[in-house]
Amino acid sequence: MSLLPPQITKAIEEFSKLPGIGPKSAERLTFHLLRSSKASPEGLGNALINVKNELKYCTTCQMVTLQEQCSICVDTTRDHSQVLVVENPLDVVAFEKTSYKGAYHVLHGVLSPIDGMGPEQLKMKELFDRCRAGGVSEVIVATNPDVEGEATASYIRQQLTGNVASVTRLAHGLPMGADIEFADQTTLKEALAGRRSL
Amino acid sequence: MSLLPPQITKAIEEFSKLPGIGPKSAERLTFHLLRSSKASPEGLGNALINVKNELKYCTTCQMVTLQEQCSICVDTTRDHSQVLVVENPLDVVAFEKTSYKGAYHVLHGVLSPIDGMGPEQLKMKELFDRCRAGGVSEVIVATNPDVEGEATASYIRQQLTGNVASVTRLAHGLPMGADIEFADQTTLKEALAGRRSL
Repeated sequence: MSLLPPQITKAIEEFSKLPGIGPKSAERLTFHLLRSSKASPEGLGNALINVKNELKYCTTCQMVTLQEQCSICVDTTRDHSQVLVVENPLDVVAFEKTSYKGAYHVLHGVLSPIDGMGPEQLKMKELFDRCRAGGVSEVIVATNPDVEGEATASYIRQQLTGNVASVTRLAHGLPMGADIEFADQTTLKEALAGRRSL
Repeated sequence: MSLLPPQITKAIEEFSKLPGIGPKSAERLTFHLLRSSKASPEGLGNALINVKNELKYCTTCQMVTLQEQCSICVDTTRDHSQVLVVENPLDVVAFEKTSYKGAYHVLHGVLSPIDGMGPEQLKMKELFDRCRAGGVSEVIVATNPDVEGEATASYIRQQLTGNVASVTRLAHGLPMGADIEFADQTTLKEALAGRRSL
């Protein structure tokens, strides 16, 4: 690679640090940017440098925002006694497409000791303080249904017992439109265990 | 998406312009950079802004370089009468891993009218001027074996007829380690047509 100028190898190296982008894709992306008329290295570069500019985390729910509080937390028409706990800001965007009208709390990750993610690296303290301050009647844990998400959910339930009337978890089961034939074993087990009367 | 601050949507938008990165991947990459300890938006951002800094194109072969001429073109031990024409700088890196000891010419793309890539958008004039100036006995066209690559090869052969003693094309056929059972029809046809005596 010594044939390539160092600033190009540096860009390739930085791209390679991204999830799902290997050295070959990183090379392709770098040269695409050098050549493309639509995208440009400066365009993406400046966007990335500005990405944290004026970026704040809502003092209540930790959602990314430009103000002290996000538009959801200042909305008095919503039910702030219900708090939906999610892993990241995009989960809030996803739930906002449903008819959910409560509040949120963004953890900015999940417990994952192997990646060095403990409760201190997440917005756990903020969640517990918020619940202990009162006014929250239900905490709905909406972490992903995987090992880390389940562990995070258990941890939250454990910490909040006694502070909040109700700590719930999103239902697990077959997703809409799924084909039972191709559903995995764990999903089928959860779907059976969580069966409801028709 | 109006829930997300504009600088985040801007970064997502810029990522989406890259080949193979859809809106969902772009979101994932942006939030990964905001949260990751290994990669950072500033790291990639600065690398991309610097990528064109002091970057030059070799006046002879158009390879990316920091000097007026690249290290290959100034190397007097190489055979500069042989010019291997490639689509992009990474192809030079690939050929440098072989025992090829001639010179190169980087087109920075291929003819592709649908993408607005004509001879003027490529380093064609530089190639033809170089060949007409004399001293080049063989031009080996090493564009990719696809529709655009083949069209580009024909165009070069056509333009150089009479100016260069020999214009050749890389051999097409089965790649080493291939399984004939799974080879495509066109490759097999080319392999048959290009058969050599053992």
